[in-house]
Amino acid sequence: MIRIYLAGPDVFLPDAEEQGERKKALCQKYGYEGVFPLDSDLDPDAYPDPRRFGMAIYHGNLRLISSCKLVIANLTPFRGPSADVGTVFEMALALGRGMRIMGYSNDPRPFAERSREFVTKCGLKNQTTFEDFGLRDNLMIDGALDTAGWPMVVPKAPVQDLGRDLTAFEECLRIVRPL
Amino acid sequence: MIRIYLAGPDVFLPDAEEQGERKKALCQKYGYEGVFPLDSDLDPDAYPDPRRFGMAIYHGNLRLISSCKLVIANLTPFRGPSADVGTVFEMALALGRGMRIMGYSNDPRPFAERSREFVTKCGLKNQTTFEDFGLRDNLMIDGALDTAGWPMVVPKAPVQDLGRDLTAFEECLRIVRPL
Repeated sequence: MIRIYLAGPDVFLPDAEEQGERKKALCQKYGYEGVFPLDSDLDPDAYPDPRRFGMAIYHGNLRLISSCKLVIANLTPFRGPSADVGTVFEMALALGRGMRIMGYSNDPRPFAERSREFVTKCGLKNQTTFEDFGLRDNLMIDGALDTAGWPMVVPKAPVQDLGRDLTAFEECLRIVRPL
Repeated sequence: MIRIYLAGPDVFLPDAEEQGERKKALCQKYGYEGVFPLDSDLDPDAYPDPRRFGMAIYHGNLRLISSCKLVIANLTPFRGPSADVGTVFEMALALGRGMRIMGYSNDPRPFAERSREFVTKCGLKNQTTFEDFGLRDNLMIDGALDTAGWPMVVPKAPVQDLGRDLTAFEECLRIVRPL
């Protein structure tokens, strides 16, 4: 069965394990095996300090990615106007290794609009320019997805729970079907 | 001469070109050739719409990265508690392709502390957990740099201009010297 690495800030949800199970169930529905970043199932007590535990998670994630054929990245903005950096890292690493990638976001707003709103909302003294190419996030992200063959997938109607909604995720599974 | 790709949100500075020149001059001082993301020197008028121009920049950056042996990523937080996603993308892609990577940040605070401060400052209703491994950013970033041999470089003393200071960048050039 083709394995799909489920990259995303879903791991930071208080119900991360359950979110992983929901995503895996959807993968199964479409004939895939979902691999969630927490699947390494590491024991924090096995490491002498938090730093070593963090490093073990890093290596665990690399192993999981290597075991998959495709990465579906949840690029919903996380603590800022852009996607979670850990997710972007995993997606780009996979691409660099020649793997296939897809991505979705539960926030369909254009990147420039979202960035400007963010700067205003957070009262940041902005001294940098805004990327404005009509894309959904930084052009390296949109560029990679478009080039890979599937532009960023977004929900057709606004969703209630940006952190958990799986409409766009399921759409990825539908689109990628003839892998 | 060994070419180094200078990834970073420096490209969003109003004086981006000058910042690029400053970084290139430092590279030269250490015997390297610095390659700045704006070096593709694309003409926006040559593209039918902003989206195509954005895509051209993406492909231009990939070409520049391919022409280099090492990426030095400016991982100073950008519009949020983490590094700029475009920079992280480029660093991870390079790593996936088997290139060498280094990174620096002008903000030496631990990631967990910075993330909590950010959520408070921006009045976000936080419903997600905080990564707390005593690292400088998301564990995929620190994990990659540590594994590559050089943990994230930070300035020894606080710097005035987080967006432009090149103390930590120069330290990268010093450390990498015996490439």
